[in-house]
Order: sequence, then structure tokens, then C-alpha cells
Amino acid sequence: MATEIEKKFLVTSDKFKRTKNKALFRQGYLSIDFERTVRVRSYDGQGFLTIKGKTRSCTREEFEYNIPVHEAERMLDKLCVRPIIEKIRYFLTYEGCKWIVDEFLGVNEGLITAEIELENEAQIFAKPEWVGNEITYDIRYFNSNLVENPYKSW
Amino acid sequence: MATEIEKKFLVTSDKFKRTKNKALFRQGYLSIDFERTVRVRSYDGQGFLTIKGKTRSCTREEFEYNIPVHEAERMLDKLCVRPIIEKIRYFLTYEGCKWIVDEFLGVNEGLITAEIELENEAQIFAKPEWVGNEITYDIRYFNSNLVENPYKSW
Repeated sequence: MATEIEKKFLVTSDKFKRTKNKALFRQGYLSIDFERTVRVRSYDGQGFLTIKGKTRSCTREEFEYNIPVHEAERMLDKLCVRPIIEKIRYFLTYEGCKWIVDEFLGVNEGLITAEIELENEAQIFAKPEWVGNEITYDIRYFNSNLVENPYKSW
Repeated sequence: MATEIEKKFLVTSDKFKRTKNKALFRQGYLSIDFERTVRVRSYDGQGFLTIKGKTRSCTREEFEYNIPVHEAERMLDKLCVRPIIEKIRYFLTYEGCKWIVDEFLGVNEGLITAEIELENEAQIFAKPEWVGNEITYDIRYFNSNLVENPYKSW
């Protein structure tokens, strides 16, 4: 199994908004148990169900299924743990690397994070000027935790 | 939405075993929250993921997805809440009505239940001689509860 390495940062300005490549993401959880999360997500007219196990060393069980978007929306509206996470996701490329920026809405408004996916821990990459402190290992920023403890209540 | 009515009974003898129409069912839960259950099931070379909301009057939200059986087995072995439910399900017809009988294994060995699906509450049906007391509304027999409180521990 390939191990993906992601690094996550806070975003310090809105200069990332120059991209037009963005979509509204809605996501919620049917389980936010420590041992397993079940996530429902809708964006760009598509629905997804994603099951993740707990992280053990570098690997994590993960299963993802494409589902009808109206069923994802129904689960988000009727079944998922409150509140739902809503965010605008921006897709950018900076000096050859792909970044995704999440601008949270609703109960997490004010929070903006950026993620880059690397091939290995030692990979060198350039940080855009709007990228601030690293928060990769800070559990408060895990999306599942932003349900139970939303940013606006910090 | 059509409302299905199911009635569940205890089974008092093994005379139902005359059918050859049977399959091993393995099922487990990624969530057994009161508000929502997420069930993983494998049988007959197929995998399923089923999400159910809580029952409100006669209706219940329900979503089911066919998934690769090896992924269902992996979730059953690695991710689901312990223990897993294992049972042999028998499919029978008695005087024009379809019955399913579940003979539980493992931690629920000794428990055998029978279910019939009716079109309405008033429908008349014949009970086979091996069908005993009704347990439709007895929560102890809900499969999700047989995980947390298995039959052998009663």
C-alpha cells in the first residue's frame, strides 16, 4: 500500500482566492468513533461514503464509495451527527505542487486551512506566501473534531 | 414510501432445516448509535453497506450499497465493533408466504429466529409448527443489540 504524506497549514491571507477552481463541500459523519469514522460527502454533483480506520503507524484502512448525490444530501440533512461541515475547497498549483485550501463556513467560519500531498517526508516544496504555521498533527483541526468542537466555539 | 411490516418469532425446533436454500451471513457494525446504524454484511459472495436511521412512527431512513465482498470482509475483520454477528440464513416458503430463519453462530449460538414480511398489519398468515412466540418488538433480539449483549451471555 502506498503511503501518502499530507501536511496541513493555517492560511494567513486570502490571496489563494485567485483560483477559479473551487467547489462547495458538505460533509458529515455517521460515526466519529476513535476506532472508525464513516463520512458522507457531497460536492460538485457527486456523493461519497468514506470509511476510515484508526491510524496505526503510517497506514490506515480506508474505503471509499461513490453514491447518488441526492442520497448523500439526504444523509447529511437527516442522519449525520450535527453540525455538518461546510467549506469551499479551492484547488491550486504552486511551483509544481498541488495544494487544496479549505475555507470553512457556518460554525467553523473564520478557519482556513491548506494541505499539500508529498511523496515522502524529505520532499522539498515551496510555501506560498499565504501559508502559515503547520497544524498537521494538531487534532483540533481534524474535520471530525470540528463537528464536536467547532472553530467558532474555541 | 412503501411501509414494510415484518414480524419476528422464536423458532422451537429444527424442522425448518428441510430447505437447501441457505447462506452464511456475516455482519458487523461501524456505528450502533441510537440515531443511526451503519451495517457491513457479506453473504453468497456479495458485500453490502447499509445505513439506517432511527425508526420514527412507521418509517425509517434506509440506504443500501453493494460493495466488493473482499472489502466487506476486510471491514468485518478489521474495523467493525466486536463481536461480529455470524448466522446461517434459511429461505423458506410456507403456505404461500416467504419466511427467513436465522440460526445464529458464535457468541449468539443457540438463538434461532424466524421472520415473515407482510403487506399490512391485518394480513392473515399461517404459522409453521416450528414457529414459537413473537419477539418483533423485543429490542434484545435486534441484531445490533446482539453485538453489545450476545445471546450466550443472557
